[in-house]
Amino acid sequence: MPDMDQPLVLSTRDTAGVVRLTLNRSSFYNALSEAMLAALQAELDEVGRDEAARVVVLAGSGKAFSAGHDLKEMRASPSQAYYESLFDSCTRTMMAIQRLPVPVIARVHGIATAAGCQLVAMCDLAVASTDARFAVSGVKLGLFCSTPSVALSRNVPRKQAMEMLLTGDFIDAEEARNQGLVNRVAAPEQLDGELDDLVQKILEKPRVAIAVGKEQFYRQIEAGIAEAYAIAGKAMACNMMDEAALEGVQAFLDKRPPSWTRD
Amino acid sequence: MPDMDQPLVLSTRDTAGVVRLTLNRSSFYNALSEAMLAALQAELDEVGRDEAARVVVLAGSGKAFSAGHDLKEMRASPSQAYYESLFDSCTRTMMAIQRLPVPVIARVHGIATAAGCQLVAMCDLAVASTDARFAVSGVKLGLFCSTPSVALSRNVPRKQAMEMLLTGDFIDAEEARNQGLVNRVAAPEQLDGELDDLVQKILEKPRVAIAVGKEQFYRQIEAGIAEAYAIAGKAMACNMMDEAALEGVQAFLDKRPPSWTRD
Amino acid sequence: MPDMDQPLVLSTRDTAGVVRLTLNRSSFYNALSEAMLAALQAELDEVGRDEAARVVVLAGSGKAFSAGHDLKEMRASPSQAYYESLFDSCTRTMMAIQRLPVPVIARVHGIATAAGCQLVAMCDLAVASTDARFAVSGVKLGLFCSTPSVALSRNVPRKQAMEMLLTGDFIDAEEARNQGLVNRVAAPEQLDGELDDLVQKILEKPRVAIAVGKEQFYRQIEAGIAEAYAIAGKAMACNMMDEAALEGVQAFLDKRPPSWTRD
Repeated sequence: MPDMDQPLVLSTRDTAGVVRLTLNRSSFYNALSEAMLAALQAELDEVGRDEAARVVVLAGSGKAFSAGHDLKEMRASPSQAYYESLFDSCTRTMMAIQRLPVPVIARVHGIATAAGCQLVAMCDLAVASTDARFAVSGVKLGLFCSTPSVALSRNVPRKQAMEMLLTGDFIDAEEARNQGLVNRVAAPEQLDGELDDLVQKILEKPRVAIAVGKEQFYRQIEAGIAEAYAIAGKAMACNMMDEAALEGVQAFLDKRPPSWTRD
Repeated sequence: MPDMDQPLVLSTRDTAGVVRLTLNRSSFYNALSEAMLAALQAELDEVGRDEAARVVVLAGSGKAFSAGHDLKEMRASPSQAYYESLFDSCTRTMMAIQRLPVPVIARVHGIATAAGCQLVAMCDLAVASTDARFAVSGVKLGLFCSTPSVALSRNVPRKQAMEMLLTGDFIDAEEARNQGLVNRVAAPEQLDGELDDLVQKILEKPRVAIAVGKEQFYRQIEAGIAEAYAIAGKAMACNMMDEAALEGVQAFLDKRPPSWTRD
Repeated sequence: MPDMDQPLVLSTRDTAGVVRLTLNRSSFYNALSEAMLAALQAELDEVGRDEAARVVVLAGSGKAFSAGHDLKEMRASPSQAYYESLFDSCTRTMMAIQRLPVPVIARVHGIATAAGCQLVAMCDLAVASTDARFAVSGVKLGLFCSTPSVALSRNVPRKQAMEMLLTGDFIDAEEARNQGLVNRVAAPEQLDGELDDLVQKILEKPRVAIAVGKEQFYRQIEAGIAEAYAIAGKAMACNMMDEAALEGVQAFLDKRPPSWTRD
């Protein structure tokens, strides 16, 4: 197993603020073991503290994005308390993606199954290779993908989520796009190009606008419409008072490009 | 009316646990009269008590799936109290589908209108013949399909639901699939083959995994995401502690088929 | 600026009850200035009081539907309190559309951006010209379209909404239809024909049925399913007790057209 002496999650950040996190246990299809979840959590925490981070690309090394929980580890310690704590810690990591002030884009190739599929669903955006395949396959082993169903059913229509959950069958990248699970599909050799297009578009915008916008997006979507508008209105007023927005709007009125410094 | 001396709902269960419920008033387009709702409720209750039941296929006899409420009966006793009680009893039957521990698949041919369309929307999965057509047509008689709108708007996007509700017009099977109201569409002669494919895939899985998964699915989908994850995590831990999951996961690790007895 | 001595919103109502509201500052791409929002609010209030109104068509004059907030006005008075009050007043107008007892159809041509896109999302139905383009482009100026995100995320899937919000890029009419933001797309010369088809279908139905149905639709969609059914059941019983429904159902049973007087 040539990757066992490597970090569980590879992390790089370039000078533009693009953080690339790569699940790095290809010999285990990047299974989300406790150690892998902890490593990913640590990296996400680091991004959360890094004011220069602008966007995260989450990928998998080797032949797959991620095959979900580490079943060997799970099977080794059967107890209700252990499983509840395992799923809690998985949930914390999944929610950390949504709570980051910068967008997280899943870069999906090969398989994304069970909690691996959940990981895609929890990202803000997802780009998939034409060879990517998605399943919530736990039910085939007698373990319904309940926690993945939380993320999946917030991405795709109810009956389509139910079919995936009950059959455990794969859908391909095109179907994933049609259902709402991914944003874009590209041939393997164009996958990074498509990804960089989204990354560049995010880098062009002020960090603060995206941070405020993302935070309110996930709050308002869970509220009734009247409360949602109250949340959004306050956030947008706050955003508008920021220098970046004042300058951006003024530049638009002056028909010139905005002069934004990195904030 | 040759079907008047027949049961309102035909019911069979094979040794594999496949329950087939067939609305059986073809001369009335399988209208959901009070007696029909009661008969369907009784059959669903029976399935709920039958530990050997694994999946329900809900179909209509004759030329249509169901044309919704029995309008003659409805018109005969106009009072607010009567109508509230009628819709309450209809809601109870609809919710009983969601509360069953086994999946319910609608097998739709011909028309599914008003509460008939609602019945499709309330099932966990739906397979439609290419000749199937769907409408919430009450508005054409001055009666907006309000109770069907509850189920419909939880299956299809908001504006598309609104168009169907305001116009009362039919959509065909392909459009129903695109919108999320049905999972699969097949030519009439392939309808049962497509249905059996889903049925077989459900039969292959342990009953308990599906029961736990379905129950939590409809609970989590109504909760905020943090609470949803709490619900799902507890359910999944519970599911994992079951013998079927422990054996299924172990078999996967041993690279052998699981040895599941009927539970 | 030849339109400056014209009313901000043109309003006509024909004898059939079709109200046509046209945003009328084509030289400003029908920007939603404070005065425009107030004028639109006043027209919607008027429709709310007009028992003979049956349906509203909301359109834009000139080359576009609407480019959203008036940025010059917004930039002139930067204060948190002012922006909160501006977005509150915009929200009130948006919600007034949903609260009207008659359906509101957006007639979209050219661009619908930011709060202009939100306006489309808040209408009950939308018909778009093939030349229409939709964006929530504020982020390009450093102002994330937070209040538009409330409406958008209740029309289109989450990841697709997020992509539009993060990139600020346009989607075309066909994509808007696929995502759920509009109901129908037509060539410019067929746009009004397609619109009139929807208008006629609404005019054929009793006003009361639509008023009751629309009101409960937006209430039930925000509730848990059990409460949603309680809301819908009560509304539908009430609707059924109305003369229009009693006559409509009786006419159906008698196989004759309903004899509805204007109510």
